[in-house]
Parts: sequence; C-alpha cells; structure tokens
Amino acid sequence: MSGTSPVYGGIEAGGTKWVCAVADAGGRITDTEVIPTTTPAATLDGAVRFLRRHEPLAAIGVGSFGPIDLRPGSPTYGHITSTPKPGWADTDIVSPLRAALGVPVQVDTDVNAAALGEWRRGAAAGLTTFAYMTVGTGIGVGALVNGRPVHGLLHPEFGHIRVPRDAVRDPFTGSCPFHGDCLEGLASGEAMRRRWGRPAEHLDDPWAWELEADYLALAVLTLTYALSPERVVVGGGVAGRPSLLPAVRAKVLGLAAGYPATPALTDPAATAAYVVGPSLGGRSGITGAVELARDLAPNAGSPGAAVVDDARGSAPRA
Amino acid sequence: MSGTSPVYGGIEAGGTKWVCAVADAGGRITDTEVIPTTTPAATLDGAVRFLRRHEPLAAIGVGSFGPIDLRPGSPTYGHITSTPKPGWADTDIVSPLRAALGVPVQVDTDVNAAALGEWRRGAAAGLTTFAYMTVGTGIGVGALVNGRPVHGLLHPEFGHIRVPRDAVRDPFTGSCPFHGDCLEGLASGEAMRRRWGRPAEHLDDPWAWELEADYLALAVLTLTYALSPERVVVGGGVAGRPSLLPAVRAKVLGLAAGYPATPALTDPAATAAYVVGPSLGGRSGITGAVELARDLAPNAGSPGAAVVDDARGSAPRA
Repeated sequence: MSGTSPVYGGIEAGGTKWVCAVADAGGRITDTEVIPTTTPAATLDGAVRFLRRHEPLAAIGVGSFGPIDLRPGSPTYGHITSTPKPGWADTDIVSPLRAALGVPVQVDTDVNAAALGEWRRGAAAGLTTFAYMTVGTGIGVGALVNGRPVHGLLHPEFGHIRVPRDAVRDPFTGSCPFHGDCLEGLASGEAMRRRWGRPAEHLDDPWAWELEADYLALAVLTLTYALSPERVVVGGGVAGRPSLLPAVRAKVLGLAAGYPATPALTDPAATAAYVVGPSLGGRSGITGAVELARDLAPNAGSPGAAVVDDARGSAPRA
Repeated sequence: MSGTSPVYGGIEAGGTKWVCAVADAGGRITDTEVIPTTTPAATLDGAVRFLRRHEPLAAIGVGSFGPIDLRPGSPTYGHITSTPKPGWADTDIVSPLRAALGVPVQVDTDVNAAALGEWRRGAAAGLTTFAYMTVGTGIGVGALVNGRPVHGLLHPEFGHIRVPRDAVRDPFTGSCPFHGDCLEGLASGEAMRRRWGRPAEHLDDPWAWELEADYLALAVLTLTYALSPERVVVGGGVAGRPSLLPAVRAKVLGLAAGYPATPALTDPAATAAYVVGPSLGGRSGITGAVELARDLAPNAGSPGAAVVDDARGSAPRA
C-alpha cells in the first residue's frame, strides 16, 4: 500500500443480505454492493469478489448475525454457532475472508457494529455507555459500556428476554422458536406479521402499534434498569414508523413511575433525547463494520484502546 | 503516614445498618463496627468516630444504598438522590466524610462494591464481565463489564425490571411502592414477607420457594441476555437458603430452552459454575468498599486503570 491511502472493507452480514462496502482512510464509504444471503460458500465468495476489486485492502470488519463466537483466541473465533438459519450453524466467516484477502479481519455482532457506527458517526457520539436496539425481522441490542463493546460470556441476546404479556389484551403466544413469547417473539417484525397476518409496513391498525409500543417500552425500561445507558438508540425497519418512538417514550415514562428520579425517566423533554432514532438510518451497521476494520489499522493500537481514546477525546460530539 | 503502612477505611452503607471497617495495605480487614442507620447526621457521625480511631487513613471507600449520583465531577457526586427512605433523600454522604477525615473518598453502589469484593477476593476472580445480584430486603445488581463497574446514566436498578407474573399462580400484586409487581416487588425478602405474612427465614412452604426460584431464574436469564456476564453471583439473605440456587439453575436451563447453545445455558454442570453463591458470604460489600479505598492509593493510578490492570494480570484466580 506504499504511496496510497489505506482502503478498509466492511461487511454487514445479515440473514437475508450482506451489505459490503469499502471506505477510505477517514472511514468515508466509497463503494457498496448488496449480496443475497444464500449458502455460506456462495455468500462469502460474493463478498470476496467485491472486496478483491478494491485491493489492496488494509483490514476488514464484519458485523454479523449470530450467535457468534467473539472470544479472542478461541479456536472458533468468528464462527456463527447455533443459528436456526439453514446451512449456517457452525460456520466460520472470518477465516475464509482472511485467507482469500490476506488481511486482518475483526468481527462483532451486527448490533454491536451498528452501535459502534452510531457512536463514531451518529446518535451516540460523545457518550461512553449506551445501547442500540434494532427492531426489524428480529430484535437485538448492541451496547458499549465505558466505551467498549459488551461481549462477556458470548454477547447480549436481548431480544430473548421475557416481558409481561397480558393474555387477554394479547392472546398471541409468540413467534420465537425457542421461547414463544419472549420480546422478539412478541414485538419483532416477524411476530407482527404472524399476529396480524400482514407485514408491519402494511399495518395501520392503531391497536397493533399501541401493543408494539407497550412491548418496546418494556424493552427500553429493562435496558435502562439493566445497563444504565446514557441513551437508547432504536433502529430497524419496524421502529422507523414515525409515530412509534413518541408512543414508546410516553409509555417508558409511565412504566418508570418516577423511579429513579433522573430526568430521562421523569421529564418528557429529557426522555425525547434519551430514546432516539439512529442518525445513520439504515447505514449504522455498515458504518460500524468499516469502523471495526479501521480499529485494526497499525496506528489505531488495540481495538479497545482506540475505542477508549475516541470516547475520551476525538469522537465527534452530537 | 511516613514510615507506617497505609490504612484504608471502608463503609458498607445500608438502609438498616452501616458496616464500617479498616484494612491494612493488602486489604486485610483489621477492625469493624456496625452502626444502625438512623438520621444521616447521626449515622455519618458514628462512622467518622470509628474511622478517627484509626487515623491516619489513606483513603475511604463507600458502597452505598441508592439511587446515588456517581458521575465524576457532578456537583451532587456522592449524593443519595430519590430514595424513599425517610430523611435520606438528597443526602451528601461523601463531603462530610472527606471534610471530617481529610482524605479522598470514592463511592459506588452497595452492589457494585459487593461485585468488586467478589471480583478481587471471591467468586468472580479472574473474570472481566460478570454480575452480582443480591436478594435480601430488596434486589439489586452490581456489574463489571470489561473489568470496570457499570454506571452510565446513573447505575443499574435491576431490581425494578418487569418480569412475567401469572396472576393465577401468584395473585400477589407486588410490594414495590413505585412499580408493584416488578422483580423486587415480587421476589425480595420484603415481597415474601408481605405475600406470605412471615419473613423468608421463617418460611418453609415449598410452594413459596418454588415461586421464588421462578422469579430469580427470570432475573438470571434477563441478566444473561442483557449483559452477557461470564458468571452470575447471587448473594443476600434470601438467596442464602441452600435449596434455592439449585432450583434457580434448573429453571434457568428450562427458560433458556437451549438458546444460545452455550454450555452455561445448556449443560447442568456448566450452569452450576455459572450461577453461584458469593465466596465472601456477607462480607462481599465491605470487602469491596475497602477495595474502592485502595483504588485511590497514589500507586494505584486512576481507579479505572487499576481495575483494568487487575483484570489482566494480578487478580487472584478462582
């Protein structure tokens, strides 16, 4: 790469499509391609072909659907593990990219990547502890705590928390193949499609959206009490409906019932700044995937160190 | 202090009693005193009198009931804020100690202090991301993520998450003055006393403990999906009943239903190492309070840095 500016590759590896991108040294995306998610071999091959057109690359970042092994040094690092998605269980998505392109690859969950994107260039800029929740076909949460992504045992699987369901108000028993009426089983796009017989984008019944706001408010409040984020960014296709977040905020205030007495949970104006949509729209994830690659650059130090430095100093302020 | 080894003060500031301690340079507790929690002035005065007997002190750490302001640099840092405890709302517990004793004071929540204690000297040694849940008069969670305590917006208030309640199995509508049937309102010692008319230590009805295990399993699973801890340490007086944790573990396995397919959630032997009691028994909190003081020592660097160094190198291994 001598004499040329480094090029970073990013992949937002989703269950229905992979968004591939390349970006310049500053993280500005210069080209993208969308590949349908078919078999692992064909999908990875499509991503490699796109990225090869932009060689030499400096590094690749991947935000992937999961569950995925993120433990550094694990023999199955970067393997999608127990997904119900046909053909994808126990699939290594890191080694094939590294082998084909000869550059370092860093992977995180799709939602942690989206959180990173919103943090570096979006609605979470300047914060150190926050959560990004996506409400689309499924529900997931990515989180940074003290400026670093949450991994731990595996990674958060927040879509699968149990929430109260009043069987009289909502007799639908849920769409989750594992848990039935967990949060994702009640409030994801798939749950809405199964409950109402139509996809969310074709639903206008106010009661359907009232119920959706109920569940998402429970989700935001549980996130608040569990993680104490400074802000909750709610993205994804279902959450994009303009009337939804205002309803969620009002219900969060009602559920919190003034406890604890912090403005985000007591003052509607503060709640409006606490529960927000993403600044990057549908590009949070691919932006974060590119940032995962940029964190691997030699002058970025360790990814954790780069992240912490950013939190303290150079992150753009909202 | 020239020529003498530093002495650290610790206070576990609870709603019914304050446990005060002093410890040597290595963190070994050498003297303790228990003071009943009465008015702020009288309680603080009792703590100061105990600590004065051990001067010169190097620093003081406090693990306090809350909600409490933990934001560094905040004008109300170390103030208990919106507690319903009579006389204690908007009480500054840091400045009086600092003024009376002339040494730096660091405060965290009682449960974050207990988590720190179990991490440095107990059941969470060697981990970087884990949760400590206390089930006593109330329910609270302290957590370290990537080796640092979780504060964020305020601090976790995990006792107040909503969990499903089947009104046929459990018609008790909860004891929480804010939320009724939140987790604390259903499963704390106070909730058990109100539901059954007797304190938990005098309850032997198997059904009472079956229900308690149900709620605590929901709590552990929600923690798992929200925070992805490598271990959940469950302490507190109610959780000390020997038959309880085995029942909770079995129910966690049932609720997780194999998702995600990680041993802690699928293999009973791994679950037994994942959901554990505290190693320090009732001393987790005061041990952690002393550690908060030791983190203020000049050679400990910043508290955060000391904690991270410990996580990577010198923490005792379990």
